[in-house]
Amino acid sequence: MSVLTAQETFGDDPVKSVGLMADDARVAARSLARAPRAWKDRALNLMADRIESRRDSILEANARDLERGRQDGTSAAMLDRLKLDPERITGLADALRELAALPDPVGSVVRGQTLANGLRMRQIRVPMGVVGVIYEARPNVTVDIAGIAVKSGNAVLLRGGSAAFDSNRALVGVLRDALADAKLPVDCVQTVDDYGREGASALMGARGKVDVLIPRGGRGLIQSVVTNATVPVIETGEGNVHVFVDESAPAEMAVKVVVNSKTHRTSTCNSAETLLLHSGAPEASREVLAALDKAGVTLHVDDRAAALLPPGSDHLKATEEDWATEYLDMDMAVKVVDGLGEALEHIRRYSTGHTEAIVTNDLANAECFTAEVDSAAVLVNASTRFTDGGQLGLGAEIGISTQKMHARGPMGLEELTTTKWVVQGDGHVRS
Amino acid sequence: MSVLTAQETFGDDPVKSVGLMADDARVAARSLARAPRAWKDRALNLMADRIESRRDSILEANARDLERGRQDGTSAAMLDRLKLDPERITGLADALRELAALPDPVGSVVRGQTLANGLRMRQIRVPMGVVGVIYEARPNVTVDIAGIAVKSGNAVLLRGGSAAFDSNRALVGVLRDALADAKLPVDCVQTVDDYGREGASALMGARGKVDVLIPRGGRGLIQSVVTNATVPVIETGEGNVHVFVDESAPAEMAVKVVVNSKTHRTSTCNSAETLLLHSGAPEASREVLAALDKAGVTLHVDDRAAALLPPGSDHLKATEEDWATEYLDMDMAVKVVDGLGEALEHIRRYSTGHTEAIVTNDLANAECFTAEVDSAAVLVNASTRFTDGGQLGLGAEIGISTQKMHARGPMGLEELTTTKWVVQGDGHVRS
Repeated sequence: MSVLTAQETFGDDPVKSVGLMADDARVAARSLARAPRAWKDRALNLMADRIESRRDSILEANARDLERGRQDGTSAAMLDRLKLDPERITGLADALRELAALPDPVGSVVRGQTLANGLRMRQIRVPMGVVGVIYEARPNVTVDIAGIAVKSGNAVLLRGGSAAFDSNRALVGVLRDALADAKLPVDCVQTVDDYGREGASALMGARGKVDVLIPRGGRGLIQSVVTNATVPVIETGEGNVHVFVDESAPAEMAVKVVVNSKTHRTSTCNSAETLLLHSGAPEASREVLAALDKAGVTLHVDDRAAALLPPGSDHLKATEEDWATEYLDMDMAVKVVDGLGEALEHIRRYSTGHTEAIVTNDLANAECFTAEVDSAAVLVNASTRFTDGGQLGLGAEIGISTQKMHARGPMGLEELTTTKWVVQGDGHVRS
Repeated sequence: MSVLTAQETFGDDPVKSVGLMADDARVAARSLARAPRAWKDRALNLMADRIESRRDSILEANARDLERGRQDGTSAAMLDRLKLDPERITGLADALRELAALPDPVGSVVRGQTLANGLRMRQIRVPMGVVGVIYEARPNVTVDIAGIAVKSGNAVLLRGGSAAFDSNRALVGVLRDALADAKLPVDCVQTVDDYGREGASALMGARGKVDVLIPRGGRGLIQSVVTNATVPVIETGEGNVHVFVDESAPAEMAVKVVVNSKTHRTSTCNSAETLLLHSGAPEASREVLAALDKAGVTLHVDDRAAALLPPGSDHLKATEEDWATEYLDMDMAVKVVDGLGEALEHIRRYSTGHTEAIVTNDLANAECFTAEVDSAAVLVNASTRFTDGGQLGLGAEIGISTQKMHARGPMGLEELTTTKWVVQGDGHVRS
């Protein structure tokens, strides 16, 4: 199949070209909004089939990205996130098929009643329209986001990291072919990658043409989008996550929850970064710190925590900066506090409002912690890694919102919709 | 009672002072978020009592604003919106008592389940925290917004129009006294009016300190806030509202709905501004235009509509500008279209996404219109004036959102809340 680049189709001016792409997306979104669930699900299943049947050409494109990355001296961790292989391709296809099996959020009635005057009122879920997503060099995100957008009835404009340029171009081509096969408008999925950083800027400035912009990635990316976009943004991700081990915490449970929160997958936003230990629980604290040390975590400790460390442990002295750092690595800041109040005060000061957890056996403290902590997710006696759309039963996740407006915490299909009030009368007027 | 001005308490630097006020609001909001419904309702009832018992001093303050307004040559319409009288004071008190009687949105469970692994998950409604509201010189809005904020558990920072300075200062003093009587933190209600325009700017820039900013007023105010704020904004109000009279519209119903949509209260955002007439319905169109003319509406007509006017009617030739104008007055743009498709095309181009209505007896056209029109509210055979929180059963209204994120259309108490995910386990970890 020959695919025209966006530049060949729209020209060289990023702002104008992205505007034209958004206009095409708007027209496509109009059809998609009215498409019955069966059509959208067929498209998702065709996407899955096509990704598998064209696996080799996708892997070839990915190999070009990897080769370029190696030449540019990209880190092994980054190369791993960039890499596709047959197993990961199968995973992408499976995720699309699972998406097809989920209920359709579009058309569900949020509120509805017949008013005293006989007016019939319904507030119904409708797609947002045109969604922009800016993300880093992870080709799997391209497929995930496109699938979620189509399922929720939205057209999407993608801007992936330039290191994944060839992979994304190949994948978007496959996804658009599947849309065509499904007789849905191909412009439901478009990429502005041809315009590089200027394409991202154009997306951020497309107020009125793009309904919502979702940045997915590290702190720098998200802050840049939040600061520069005039399009409404859903802020995602940054997680300076705390676990507080209360005085009454059973030691064994504290060890399990803290170690899992920190080490299960360090690069994710729901991993714990700071550990707060109640000064009245030195035994549990010692066990937790020994377990973290054994697991290979570098501890950044205050003076009181230093006294609880196992002999010869690998540790650093915590500085003010540590309390505010999202390591996303095998590092953890540790502070001893004199009670729940001091723990809450510390969290208020340094939390990014993503996720915090308490390990406790005290009911009043558990209630107080969940009520007072102003974060998207608050966990009692459970790993912070559970702040995740899949884990919490949303089925699919487009990201984790750290803002209070529109959506907070894990966002599923419903969070990519808005509502419309439909009111039917028989010539009703106001008196 | 002696009330310190904000300047006496916080000093002269608007950005620093508004920041300190927002910090106080945050502390106050924390108490209010945990206050049981009975406490909040008691505060609202005390606010109502106090407003009535201190009616005379409020009216005196209002008289000063009115006198200043007259000297400054303020229009009669503006003075009317600024004016309080015993009847309006009673109305304000009654609205607060009605608010007290409404259900509390805080604490309600939006989703909840026990997951397969035994984790108990609940997504619960919690207040936003600190809400900023920027509005025009209407003292009744001060009381409305403060009441809605307290009921929904939020602290509020108010910035009213400077023409209502004395009235707002008197009202905020009364509201704060009532909060003190109710043993709730007085800093739940504060005004930044002492800092004038710079106070408004400081509010817009208080990112991280103010959770959401709601501008209420005309186009200029709203656009200024949307463009300049770094705090998340809920865009309200601007309504270039259309009514389409379809070919099958019963003439009598068309007359009733169009005249009510246009003339019931012209200064509101849900009043109709453009009338689209199906070319196949000349009789109904003639009757509608005659009724509008008789009601005193100045019609801005295209050539085809001109031919349907009653002889000697007061009209103007419509220009491109008319299609995009929100008159908020006894003016209406009129265009004849050749069918539903052309009507939809016109609406797509000129609508502000607030409200559109169709008058029709054709079921397929009604369905197509409600599905295709991308506005917050779509009405069939009912006046556009029904896009209103009170009319649609929300009980109280903080404004009408014209954006798609967070809230769309009339916003009640629930729209001033966000959610929090509370997850409880027994030492659950991810494997």
